[in-house]
Amino acid sequence: MSTASFQATLDRMPALEQLRADPGDHRVLSGDRPTGPLHLAHLFASIQNRVLLQDSGIETFVLIADYQVITDRETTGQIGSYVRSAVLDYLAAGIDPQRSVIFAHSAVPALNQLLLPFLSLVTEAELHRNPTVKSELAASGRALSGLLLTYPVHQAADILFCDADLVPVGKDNLPHVELTRTIARRFNDRYGVTFRVPEALLTHTPDIPGLDGRKMSKSFGNAINLSMSADETAALIRRTPTDSARVITFDPDNRPGVSGLLSTAALVLGESPEAIAERVHGAAELKALVTESVNDYLAGHRARRDGFARDARLVQDVLHSGNRRANDVAEQALSRVRAAMGMTY
Amino acid sequence: MSTASFQATLDRMPALEQLRADPGDHRVLSGDRPTGPLHLAHLFASIQNRVLLQDSGIETFVLIADYQVITDRETTGQIGSYVRSAVLDYLAAGIDPQRSVIFAHSAVPALNQLLLPFLSLVTEAELHRNPTVKSELAASGRALSGLLLTYPVHQAADILFCDADLVPVGKDNLPHVELTRTIARRFNDRYGVTFRVPEALLTHTPDIPGLDGRKMSKSFGNAINLSMSADETAALIRRTPTDSARVITFDPDNRPGVSGLLSTAALVLGESPEAIAERVHGAAELKALVTESVNDYLAGHRARRDGFARDARLVQDVLHSGNRRANDVAEQALSRVRAAMGMTY
Repeated sequence: MSTASFQATLDRMPALEQLRADPGDHRVLSGDRPTGPLHLAHLFASIQNRVLLQDSGIETFVLIADYQVITDRETTGQIGSYVRSAVLDYLAAGIDPQRSVIFAHSAVPALNQLLLPFLSLVTEAELHRNPTVKSELAASGRALSGLLLTYPVHQAADILFCDADLVPVGKDNLPHVELTRTIARRFNDRYGVTFRVPEALLTHTPDIPGLDGRKMSKSFGNAINLSMSADETAALIRRTPTDSARVITFDPDNRPGVSGLLSTAALVLGESPEAIAERVHGAAELKALVTESVNDYLAGHRARRDGFARDARLVQDVLHSGNRRANDVAEQALSRVRAAMGMTY
Repeated sequence: MSTASFQATLDRMPALEQLRADPGDHRVLSGDRPTGPLHLAHLFASIQNRVLLQDSGIETFVLIADYQVITDRETTGQIGSYVRSAVLDYLAAGIDPQRSVIFAHSAVPALNQLLLPFLSLVTEAELHRNPTVKSELAASGRALSGLLLTYPVHQAADILFCDADLVPVGKDNLPHVELTRTIARRFNDRYGVTFRVPEALLTHTPDIPGLDGRKMSKSFGNAINLSMSADETAALIRRTPTDSARVITFDPDNRPGVSGLLSTAALVLGESPEAIAERVHGAAELKALVTESVNDYLAGHRARRDGFARDARLVQDVLHSGNRRANDVAEQALSRVRAAMGMTY
């Protein structure tokens, strides 16, 4: 993504505030890969935005991108439990299945079929240029799979099947939206206007490191999962390595552990990490503050989550109804696409 | 395809005669790309084999690979009329929609969804090594599209969705069956045994050039389409350029026109081109012989075709019923795949 195209996206981007005032006929698509339990960074970076958009009256499609679990790993692992856990977190965070559509890739064949015509609209060279694919490839340490190479085209299908015109993304994922815009325009040019050309809704989220200052990730063991109990959270924070300097300073490069803890407290308290650093003394006090503030912040989420989890059929019902709605929408989109391509026999 | 793997395929290959004697629980998948009207080479190289297999009691799936039209061209063109024309030719050639399943890619979303898990099982490097993709890329004169790169994986889905264990192919398409075998084995290894590993049913078809001696192709204008009338066939043969030598000899390198005509007559008369060359004198007599023999050979096909074409709803009914059956089979296969991958929520 060049600086110019980043600026162009900013210029096109409808402000979140403006959207909330006038939801119009916008529709939003966003989603998660169920590679592990959702954690604090997911909550702040995306789930809360979805709730805001939903509550503004904008129809929101929330995709559980289960096939994307195997873009960069060999098997699906504990995918079932991660999917169920994600749905509980969505509900606890305020995503309302009556107003938003929660669905899984694997349950919507007509959406997935769109991958085929869309693959004809892009060259292999364009797929190779995608910087997110490049960095995910490097991180995976594996040979480039056909699915990793083509998943941005699958994402275009996610966005276009439901006629989403707004796609909340961080800066890193802008190239995916650009590719989707290219695919929509090329399809419209070749086969007649069929798709709205979507816009990125650039989300400015705070930098959310894990407890140890590295990127928050299940594999680093530095993530506060939304499904953790208060005790598990306390234990995880206790285990975070810090230095022994008595004075607490926010210095991510030299003091990653202390700074990761400060960032976490800053996030849930809505303060700057520097301000917090000034009023705590020593790592033990810092850890106590982080534990208390995170557990306070998540108390409501956890209580709601536990309540939903006691209803044995709820998650399945939510997914079944979301999948049904997504299938209706996808089958209509596929009918339009088949008609535009002359594939009605 | 190395010589060794070609030999290995031959060694594994069940003889067609043996299959006809003992159809067992075999199932066959084969198909055509609807890029134009079907012609004489399609009839001899594949359609007649399907009829033989069907009539031996082997369930045969006949795929109209409509998405593969856009692997190497920009748009779908007259795809609707080519699809309808192909169905008429299938029926006229003896494919019985009560016993064989005639269906189109675009109408079977659950089949197409299998592309996603299968893409995760192959590397981009493996896709690049496919010699058929390489030669089709060179012939297309275009940049490699995502669809051309990945269509062999889509073919694996065609074969595996219906649990076909036999795939009739010419030598050039053996790499596709090899890739399908690889995908089936890798899926079974990772997720538990789900698919039969199919075998290529190597078809030894005679070399079938067009009238001018080049490869028979719509774009060369040298193909006798099954949908042509006797008069159109005569006019096409009349226009074929030949040399003026009075003695007719079979010499494909130096006399392509004469030799193409001889090959065509040989095909429909079941004789050798050399034997025919000995008994005809001059291009005019040769053209008269080819016209008469082709028109005689196709008279029954054309009469049946015309009869079927008069029933305005027949083609649609055949496709609807084939698509329905293919969807039933594909949805069962997809359910097994989702269960194996833990994607049941």
